[in-house]
Amino acid sequence: MRIGILTGGGDCPGLNAVIRAVVRKGVGHDGDEVIGFRDGWRGLLDGDAVPLDLAAVRGILPRGGTVLGTSRTNPYALDDGPERVLSCLDRFGIDALVPIGGEDTLGVATRLAERGVRVVGVPKTIDNDLDATDYTFGFDTAVGVATEAIDRLHTTGDSHHRTLVVEVMGRHAGWIALHAGMAGGANVILIPEHPFDVDAVVAHVQHRFDTGFSPIVVVSEGAQARDGALTVAAGQADAFGHVRLGGIGPALAALIEERTGRESRAVVLGHVQRGGTPSPFDRVLATRFGLAAIEAVHDGETGVMVALRGTDIVRVPLATATARLKLVPAERYAEAEVFFG
Amino acid sequence: MRIGILTGGGDCPGLNAVIRAVVRKGVGHDGDEVIGFRDGWRGLLDGDAVPLDLAAVRGILPRGGTVLGTSRTNPYALDDGPERVLSCLDRFGIDALVPIGGEDTLGVATRLAERGVRVVGVPKTIDNDLDATDYTFGFDTAVGVATEAIDRLHTTGDSHHRTLVVEVMGRHAGWIALHAGMAGGANVILIPEHPFDVDAVVAHVQHRFDTGFSPIVVVSEGAQARDGALTVAAGQADAFGHVRLGGIGPALAALIEERTGRESRAVVLGHVQRGGTPSPFDRVLATRFGLAAIEAVHDGETGVMVALRGTDIVRVPLATATARLKLVPAERYAEAEVFFG
Amino acid sequence: MRIGILTGGGDCPGLNAVIRAVVRKGVGHDGDEVIGFRDGWRGLLDGDAVPLDLAAVRGILPRGGTVLGTSRTNPYALDDGPERVLSCLDRFGIDALVPIGGEDTLGVATRLAERGVRVVGVPKTIDNDLDATDYTFGFDTAVGVATEAIDRLHTTGDSHHRTLVVEVMGRHAGWIALHAGMAGGANVILIPEHPFDVDAVVAHVQHRFDTGFSPIVVVSEGAQARDGALTVAAGQADAFGHVRLGGIGPALAALIEERTGRESRAVVLGHVQRGGTPSPFDRVLATRFGLAAIEAVHDGETGVMVALRGTDIVRVPLATATARLKLVPAERYAEAEVFFG
Amino acid sequence: MRIGILTGGGDCPGLNAVIRAVVRKGVGHDGDEVIGFRDGWRGLLDGDAVPLDLAAVRGILPRGGTVLGTSRTNPYALDDGPERVLSCLDRFGIDALVPIGGEDTLGVATRLAERGVRVVGVPKTIDNDLDATDYTFGFDTAVGVATEAIDRLHTTGDSHHRTLVVEVMGRHAGWIALHAGMAGGANVILIPEHPFDVDAVVAHVQHRFDTGFSPIVVVSEGAQARDGALTVAAGQADAFGHVRLGGIGPALAALIEERTGRESRAVVLGHVQRGGTPSPFDRVLATRFGLAAIEAVHDGETGVMVALRGTDIVRVPLATATARLKLVPAERYAEAEVFFG
Repeated sequence: MRIGILTGGGDCPGLNAVIRAVVRKGVGHDGDEVIGFRDGWRGLLDGDAVPLDLAAVRGILPRGGTVLGTSRTNPYALDDGPERVLSCLDRFGIDALVPIGGEDTLGVATRLAERGVRVVGVPKTIDNDLDATDYTFGFDTAVGVATEAIDRLHTTGDSHHRTLVVEVMGRHAGWIALHAGMAGGANVILIPEHPFDVDAVVAHVQHRFDTGFSPIVVVSEGAQARDGALTVAAGQADAFGHVRLGGIGPALAALIEERTGRESRAVVLGHVQRGGTPSPFDRVLATRFGLAAIEAVHDGETGVMVALRGTDIVRVPLATATARLKLVPAERYAEAEVFFG
Repeated sequence: MRIGILTGGGDCPGLNAVIRAVVRKGVGHDGDEVIGFRDGWRGLLDGDAVPLDLAAVRGILPRGGTVLGTSRTNPYALDDGPERVLSCLDRFGIDALVPIGGEDTLGVATRLAERGVRVVGVPKTIDNDLDATDYTFGFDTAVGVATEAIDRLHTTGDSHHRTLVVEVMGRHAGWIALHAGMAGGANVILIPEHPFDVDAVVAHVQHRFDTGFSPIVVVSEGAQARDGALTVAAGQADAFGHVRLGGIGPALAALIEERTGRESRAVVLGHVQRGGTPSPFDRVLATRFGLAAIEAVHDGETGVMVALRGTDIVRVPLATATARLKLVPAERYAEAEVFFG
Repeated sequence: MRIGILTGGGDCPGLNAVIRAVVRKGVGHDGDEVIGFRDGWRGLLDGDAVPLDLAAVRGILPRGGTVLGTSRTNPYALDDGPERVLSCLDRFGIDALVPIGGEDTLGVATRLAERGVRVVGVPKTIDNDLDATDYTFGFDTAVGVATEAIDRLHTTGDSHHRTLVVEVMGRHAGWIALHAGMAGGANVILIPEHPFDVDAVVAHVQHRFDTGFSPIVVVSEGAQARDGALTVAAGQADAFGHVRLGGIGPALAALIEERTGRESRAVVLGHVQRGGTPSPFDRVLATRFGLAAIEAVHDGETGVMVALRGTDIVRVPLATATARLKLVPAERYAEAEVFFG
Repeated sequence: MRIGILTGGGDCPGLNAVIRAVVRKGVGHDGDEVIGFRDGWRGLLDGDAVPLDLAAVRGILPRGGTVLGTSRTNPYALDDGPERVLSCLDRFGIDALVPIGGEDTLGVATRLAERGVRVVGVPKTIDNDLDATDYTFGFDTAVGVATEAIDRLHTTGDSHHRTLVVEVMGRHAGWIALHAGMAGGANVILIPEHPFDVDAVVAHVQHRFDTGFSPIVVVSEGAQARDGALTVAAGQADAFGHVRLGGIGPALAALIEERTGRESRAVVLGHVQRGGTPSPFDRVLATRFGLAAIEAVHDGETGVMVALRGTDIVRVPLATATARLKLVPAERYAEAEVFFG
């Protein structure tokens, strides 16, 4: 078979591991041809493609990023987008397509499947917020980067008797904050699913100082205060006269400093969480996703996505898979709260 | 309640995280007292115990090892062992016991539960070979150590055109070899569950050299050749006149060198896999196990063990939990074989 | 002898290693008593001290931060500060003082030595900008943190065809940017010693894109554009209407995006560079500094500082040691420029 | 100019960084051509060469190993070796040669320089035992790998109340053991330069147990007991009936177990120390060596080697540079001894 592959949306450690697995199994074992489209759906709009043989994927397993490039291009945002994609698939003689991406990328995949394209999706979101799979690759790596930063900040916080606020990724779901915060021994964890009470945060911070140690607050970029005090637009002065750039972290640090009378500093981890070599967990998961995608293609599946359930790779319908965000449930947040203060 | 806790068997990153979670929840939130017994069941035989308050567990989350010490002492190996344990539990006024350990430790726990002791076990095996739980803490860390070693060895193998054989832990089950080998891009993975054919190994090694790169072979300490050629006792000369110490790795390297006519080297990772700071995955899992154990105790459970199923922590009967080893199934090994050679 | 020790100024990985070495040699071998003053000079103003025995320093070698705490308190900023320090030294019966710190801390030490206090200083600056020593501990660790971030950002930059700007520490000297930039394969490195030309930066960025890869720009927090365009105060709108917080990095990223028409992102590493376990290089250097300080004390030295010259630890006069900043010389920057673009 | 380059002897992290720097400066800035010979001197014997342009060195800075391959082939071990090398240099039109290697490789370089070949050497030894340079690249990385292992082993030793013996590289000089042992807080460090007294080692081990913690012994592969008791040939039974393979570590562990009556385990780190991504220190040093080599070539130098003195790269005569091994001096070992026991 001739199988097309592309990577869309935000960067995520493990993308190359999926690509390699698809090629090693497809080309190396099953006699397929694999064609890579560049920069996500853009490559399918423009016919920008490259054949992927075994040599093309040699050595890419431990590398972050994607050798195919990525973009946020959505064919359905263009009038003739879907037609151009279909015509390109036809021109390249693509029998099946394996798009690797998040909600947006897989949303396009779902609609193409409805148009008759044979599609097997591979889920990708560093935020781990896709409901149909236990974990997505990239998440464990991001948690690792954030945890290492928290480990480092503990010692410097204690030496200076300062509060340190660490802003991590997570616009809608707080999984990275939850896991990195639990792993790093954070004294407060704030996530989008649970709007926070500023007084309670300050009380936890104060309590931690009372034990003789310094507080670490981990906050998802999408977390918000209950009263809305901290949700000012970037670049505007907030209620305390502080000008913020790009996140809740610095605003929260300023507020804590004001309220506790002790120095407070923010660290915004940013894109470091998205790059670099994937963790072993992510390499294994991404590799298994790639293998399972090829198997599903050969089994004649379409309109499905591979997913992790426990330790098994399963297939779920694309349409339902992307329908719902996986949020941190109350009981998981309650586990974390045991360690607050 | 007064809750006893102990850690038994081989060392494993994450033990301290369990202890901390038990104390933070028990002492810090639920008004319990927690008593730690030293060096596993030995502490309960000798009445060697220490009260654990919040200060005792401060800062131990990221540390490997166990602040309680461990041993392989089994009370049932002594005539009066069980009686001494029961009398000690009585003397310390222990209402419930949380033993953290593997097959042996939990086997003792099972028998004590049958004698009426309230017991909630926490599973621990670096080999990940306990059937009742998807993962045990420590495993992800061990895989991380092994994968980092494999990553390093790839470059030195290629520079010298040598085969490198990496021996990892796994006496009965090949999980560490399977995961680290897949994550590290090994060219052959040999595990106890699938006795290997020497000719096939040599063929894979040769094929890898033919691609212009050098082979990495990952082998579980418990792996064996089909024909038994390599299963000589440590310290005896094997069929090829090589004297081996402590493992299949060096013997296999010698054999590969002989058969391919190219240099081959072995690295036996050993105890490095058991030590040091746990990975974030293991810290979170160990913390959740500790929390769940205290909850089970408060719910009046006994004779159960906490376990991971998917992303949920569940309770399973101790008796069945330790009855069966979790081995690498054929389909998981088949996934790895896609990348051989 | 009774020896006082304190750590002042900004946090720095390796401080605990110095403290441990002083205690292990002083108390463990030479029969001294060691008294630790808390939070730098503040402890000497307030008589806040703790005796340090062998148990107090057990296990602290690999830990970041300082078990003694630190502050930026300067006794000479208070009218009665110096007298209070002298009286405290007298009250505690301190025979000699080992202050560990940077320009400020050692400046106080210099003045106290002139008043007759026996002082042997240990230099500390994460920026590596003290002229009298080849390296200071903490610097290698900071370079390691920054290099790991750059390694990670390379892959994500390439996947998204974006410029990534990494802001690292270095207010007056660009050593961290120079070393991390060279180690990380940065395409442009901007340091305070060499005001940069915006057009040249944009040209390098453009040239890198032309090779098919994405640019990484490493910039010291103290770097400035030649024309002053980017040196706006934090919180004010700059020439391009962008509001900046806390650094040159985000401003530069905004400018590069504007000028190249391609997405650009900034990462401000911040306090992560100051914390966490010291690198082996820093542990060895800090340990040797501690040992050498005790030896200098026993040799009757005063008004000196220990320093690294090649592979030797030497003693230099405190007065001259802190007189001059060690800046990146033109020829070292020229080495880095070979790799620009 | 047309410049030849080769890498000889044992693998060492940083080789690729040298190659890249030579090409980036030579080809990218100075208008040179660079020809890489494969597998050290073998490539010059067989005329096995590859032109190195900018694309050939893209992305290799952070990678261990050497893209040119390496071998221990010595032309002077063959009757017609030197003539074949000279003729090959002539055939490829090589104006100057930059060999990167240790004693052997640079010994050949010295003799070729005497025959009129223009040669500028780059020193390489993971053991750091070349007298003419403060440090060689690769050493810091090896120390890092060993220190990380020691950090991990501390916790597992303490949990099991075991002695752990870590065998590191260093046949003639104990630099890796000295630095990793100091950085890792080893309780005993044994190096080739100072034959050890078995009773003293056992006493230190015993003393460490007495403090309530477990001993870590770091031993260079070339270390020897004073009385010769442990220097049996690999594969023979030693004085204690133990059969050893490949190192002093396991023999010493067996002896300590016998003498202390407590479990003891050995870890032989082996080739992991030679592979993988170089540390930032090594990347910077290797890069500067490469730049300096090209500069020396353009300055018309020959028969010299680049070297590190303090923070400067200098040139030293090849003949003297390789004449003497740099051993650990008594005063450096005495520093380490402060922490024994």
